[in-house]
Amino acid sequence: MTKNIKVNAAILIIGNEILSGRTQDTNTSTIALWLNSLGVKVNEVRVIADVENTIIETVNHLRKTSDYVFTTGGIGPTHDDITAQSISKAFNIEYEIHKEAFEILEAYYKPGEFNKGRQKMVWMPSNAKLILNPTSGAPGFSVENVFCLPGVPSILKSMIGGLKNEIVGGKPILSHTISLRTVESEIAKSLTNVQNNNSEVEIGSYPFFQAGKLGVSIVVRSDDQSKIDKCTLMILEFINEKKIEVVER
Amino acid sequence: MTKNIKVNAAILIIGNEILSGRTQDTNTSTIALWLNSLGVKVNEVRVIADVENTIIETVNHLRKTSDYVFTTGGIGPTHDDITAQSISKAFNIEYEIHKEAFEILEAYYKPGEFNKGRQKMVWMPSNAKLILNPTSGAPGFSVENVFCLPGVPSILKSMIGGLKNEIVGGKPILSHTISLRTVESEIAKSLTNVQNNNSEVEIGSYPFFQAGKLGVSIVVRSDDQSKIDKCTLMILEFINEKKIEVVER
Repeated sequence: MTKNIKVNAAILIIGNEILSGRTQDTNTSTIALWLNSLGVKVNEVRVIADVENTIIETVNHLRKTSDYVFTTGGIGPTHDDITAQSISKAFNIEYEIHKEAFEILEAYYKPGEFNKGRQKMVWMPSNAKLILNPTSGAPGFSVENVFCLPGVPSILKSMIGGLKNEIVGGKPILSHTISLRTVESEIAKSLTNVQNNNSEVEIGSYPFFQAGKLGVSIVVRSDDQSKIDKCTLMILEFINEKKIEVVER
Repeated sequence: MTKNIKVNAAILIIGNEILSGRTQDTNTSTIALWLNSLGVKVNEVRVIADVENTIIETVNHLRKTSDYVFTTGGIGPTHDDITAQSISKAFNIEYEIHKEAFEILEAYYKPGEFNKGRQKMVWMPSNAKLILNPTSGAPGFSVENVFCLPGVPSILKSMIGGLKNEIVGGKPILSHTISLRTVESEIAKSLTNVQNNNSEVEIGSYPFFQAGKLGVSIVVRSDDQSKIDKCTLMILEFINEKKIEVVER
């Protein structure tokens, strides 16, 4: 484990259904929370169309600017599933039948059910490393630092756990949330002070509406619990002085 | 109205809370569905951190590659709200108190309530065009083709309606969904045929789980209803032949 080194990742959501607004992406949150627990910080997310050139260009950019890239979507059997062939082209690797994936799906389906349509799902970049799929058989795959997962959220969730040993992160990113019955403008100045005195901690301020009432959540994030604790104390101090009601601390 | 011209947009979600997985973005779907109705297609979404250089670089890229750019987040009163100053720098425009915005908020708040913290929200790129906010007063703004909206979904929703006359789209993008009780591999080949014979129509195939059963939704999208109808007929034809149960047509 490379400790004390900042490790980051990009998420690439491939799918017209997200861009059209028809489907709301939930995979970003799933992947980001899981990566945080492994000490990997997501620094960018992109959603792009099912267009080969766009996928190739974006993957080739992100795999250089991020330690890890996670793609979701486009690995099914239909015509709009073009992630595997695009990744092959991005890496300039042969796109062909993956023997191990073929064997897995041949065993997974009943005799006669592993038809041409399903066989498309075993076409992958040559020598891709498989990501096993305990839900529906068809595996994802990785090439170097690019990990290709399906778009269906429940299947994706069932697959990322198996990747744990593939990801070398830094220290887990910790966070603490303080929720207040106030508005941002009341705390803005004091909070800026705390941030300025604790530049290595990331302090976010997020207004919310709950049961018809306004509130603000302050989120303190760092890989160092003692720094979070120090900030939390400073925040609670000015909140006390201002007599602001604390909903969650 | 520029009809028959493809008009596209990029959405830029500015916010560490989305990248950390703490908050699930819903603004993309809201903006995309609204833009579709105006004949504007979203071709890219990016989520980036509250980091000035990242915002400047990304805005300057997207405003050249897309007809419109919509940003969300980072226009509140706290230290992590840096969208307005970043946009000023991206366009190389003075960042200063916006008179009209100042008057709006001065009238909106009770005497004495328009404090320093709140006054930060009227600092904007000089001469920015305001986007009125019927929910909570503080306006968004636009500079050229870049429209800056807040991150809170309910406030954003209340603001986009007022932008209708600012956006010049092409033909509205229409869609039709056919939901089937089948799996993708059963229809993959026939659907590819339909797509190949209708290259101007976008056909997507999306597996779903509903009440414990597998299904597939086929979404046909175009700005031409007759083309959608033609595709729909071709799809229903092969579905009939295959005796696949139709859930929604």
